[in-house]
Amino acid sequence: MQDDPEVAVLRFGHRPGRDDRMTTHVGLTARALGADRVILPDNAGQSLETIRDITTRFGGPFDAELDDSQAATIRDWDGRVVHLTMYGERVQDVEGEVRAAREETDEPLLIVVGGEKVPFEVYDEADWNVGVTNQPHSEVAGLAVFLDRLFEGDELEREWTDAEQVVVPEETGKTVVSPDELEE
Amino acid sequence: MQDDPEVAVLRFGHRPGRDDRMTTHVGLTARALGADRVILPDNAGQSLETIRDITTRFGGPFDAELDDSQAATIRDWDGRVVHLTMYGERVQDVEGEVRAAREETDEPLLIVVGGEKVPFEVYDEADWNVGVTNQPHSEVAGLAVFLDRLFEGDELEREWTDAEQVVVPEETGKTVVSPDELEE
Repeated sequence: MQDDPEVAVLRFGHRPGRDDRMTTHVGLTARALGADRVILPDNAGQSLETIRDITTRFGGPFDAELDDSQAATIRDWDGRVVHLTMYGERVQDVEGEVRAAREETDEPLLIVVGGEKVPFEVYDEADWNVGVTNQPHSEVAGLAVFLDRLFEGDELEREWTDAEQVVVPEETGKTVVSPDELEE
Repeated sequence: MQDDPEVAVLRFGHRPGRDDRMTTHVGLTARALGADRVILPDNAGQSLETIRDITTRFGGPFDAELDDSQAATIRDWDGRVVHLTMYGERVQDVEGEVRAAREETDEPLLIVVGGEKVPFEVYDEADWNVGVTNQPHSEVAGLAVFLDRLFEGDELEREWTDAEQVVVPEETGKTVVSPDELEE
């Protein structure tokens, strides 16, 4: 989040059409739960547009970009890399280590979220392969739990700048206002 | 989870084809993160099959079922109802209350996860409308964070019975064994 070392989420692999919603949800989850940036494969332009549109409407800062060489981005990342996979070490065992490394080194953190097939080199290059459970479920769910634990809930308090609209939390109903109305 | 009052997840609404993966991910996330049961709309038979197949292979107990009257199931639920929505109260403000009610009353808890359009009566009948952030992101992400907070991480320690295969968490690699091998 703002002021801290960057946390970027890299969605590895994308099949246009079939994966559009999942990739969009990865990006929106990254944004909502405290990451600073999402890096999508270069064939995921439709998801990119949706994520940018939501950022325009609901605020940032949050960056979304396409990348035509994801393997190189992971390999050359100037900081630590977490790869979320059901085959990895248990999140509850390694989250403290990831947090500590982030605080101590002040380096950006890259979180890799797989699509269908992740090549072995990603497992090899990651500093941590992490399983949010060792059960098959959802890369979106895994990312969400990992971010909430990484930030220890602080991401839920983050403030948004340049929003066109703001949802007012309430017991029952749907209230959306402009930021101006909120300040009154 | 086992021995505690039941936690069921109800996926409200489903568009066959378009929503198949999201609905499947809702069900698999419910299973992996400690819920006891998922209730799908009766047109989500394909997702049901996938969820049951995963339960057969990776263990249970976990129930998945179709329901042709979801509105009535919510209305007549014999316990508390949480509805996850970006318009609701902030999860960090109400999660303690939900947990306390669950511990004190010993009643089953129903967690409603919306598809595209949730009618106003669901907002009205829910004991809590809860937002995992008041930002648009993913119903799968919202469910995942809510369950992890509801169970305070205990769901990550749950054991599975009758699994045909078990993933062994490890630093690098993909190791899947039969439960027999694990006991040796």
